[in-house]
Amino acid sequence: MPRSDAQRNYARILAVAEQEVAEHGADASLEQIARTAGVGSATVRRHFPSRRALLDAVFRERVEVLNARARELTGAEDARGALLGWLAALTEYAASARGMATALQRDESTDGNEARVCVRLTDAGEPLLRRAIEAGAVPGEVTPADLLAVVAGVVLATEHHRDPAGEALRLLGLAVRGISPS
Amino acid sequence: MPRSDAQRNYARILAVAEQEVAEHGADASLEQIARTAGVGSATVRRHFPSRRALLDAVFRERVEVLNARARELTGAEDARGALLGWLAALTEYAASARGMATALQRDESTDGNEARVCVRLTDAGEPLLRRAIEAGAVPGEVTPADLLAVVAGVVLATEHHRDPAGEALRLLGLAVRGISPS
Repeated sequence: MPRSDAQRNYARILAVAEQEVAEHGADASLEQIARTAGVGSATVRRHFPSRRALLDAVFRERVEVLNARARELTGAEDARGALLGWLAALTEYAASARGMATALQRDESTDGNEARVCVRLTDAGEPLLRRAIEAGAVPGEVTPADLLAVVAGVVLATEHHRDPAGEALRLLGLAVRGISPS
Repeated sequence: MPRSDAQRNYARILAVAEQEVAEHGADASLEQIARTAGVGSATVRRHFPSRRALLDAVFRERVEVLNARARELTGAEDARGALLGWLAALTEYAASARGMATALQRDESTDGNEARVCVRLTDAGEPLLRRAIEAGAVPGEVTPADLLAVVAGVVLATEHHRDPAGEALRLLGLAVRGISPS
């Protein structure tokens, strides 16, 4: 098989897997992913030898998208809107990927993969937060880790809700505006 | 043994157990509890036939204290301070009792005990929230369940922190004042 076909298969499987994980979490079915991607189970296994390898790839892909979104938004004129937009994107992603909220929560974790995810997202959010603070939209003492913890919190608190992402975004809005800002 | 001795033993074991659970969570040692309370293991087992029975009693006791605190605070002149004081007490309790944050989080749980805890705390916080809304200190659309979810969130997000209660209170303060209230 030419290399480009293999790459296309890889990308298609990953895109389908991302969708399946968004809908079913870590219980996403590898067989369903193969069917929807229009490839055989053997092809899925060639690219992703285990369920864990596939979930890791989905996870890395999500973090890449969030990093890219942060870079895009850092140039935006509206520093507050840029930060809040990114926090909303982070919340939606985390709500559809149970493992991500857990990763965001482990600020003192030492076991590689998840801690690195957290560090990378903290780094990605840092310029957005700095600009929002400079614009006077966020108190100066707020840290990127605080923002990730609040996102992790609202996602974890709404895990069992009928509409986890919608409810997490609503609670994030409450924390952004303040329960009692006066 | 006269009834009052048994009652005193029960109260003492419960008080010691509450302390042990605050320090060691659900891993609290029954043997250590017996030693600190100055009673034998048999006495502990007579009052609490299983570890689960003891943890449930500690949990119920904590909820009682929080309900009593809510009733006390409902008469306070400073409606905002009363609500925020109660939320801080709830946060501190929940941070020292892992199971409580999980209980607060299960808004759609149907399995008895934990769901009832959540309903009772929601009921206890309702008059405090209503008065704070009437005083213009909290937006009118905020519900008691929202407040419990925010508390559950900051507690769950800080579970692995060096100082879970301190960090949870700090994040609660951020959500109260607002990340970006403007």
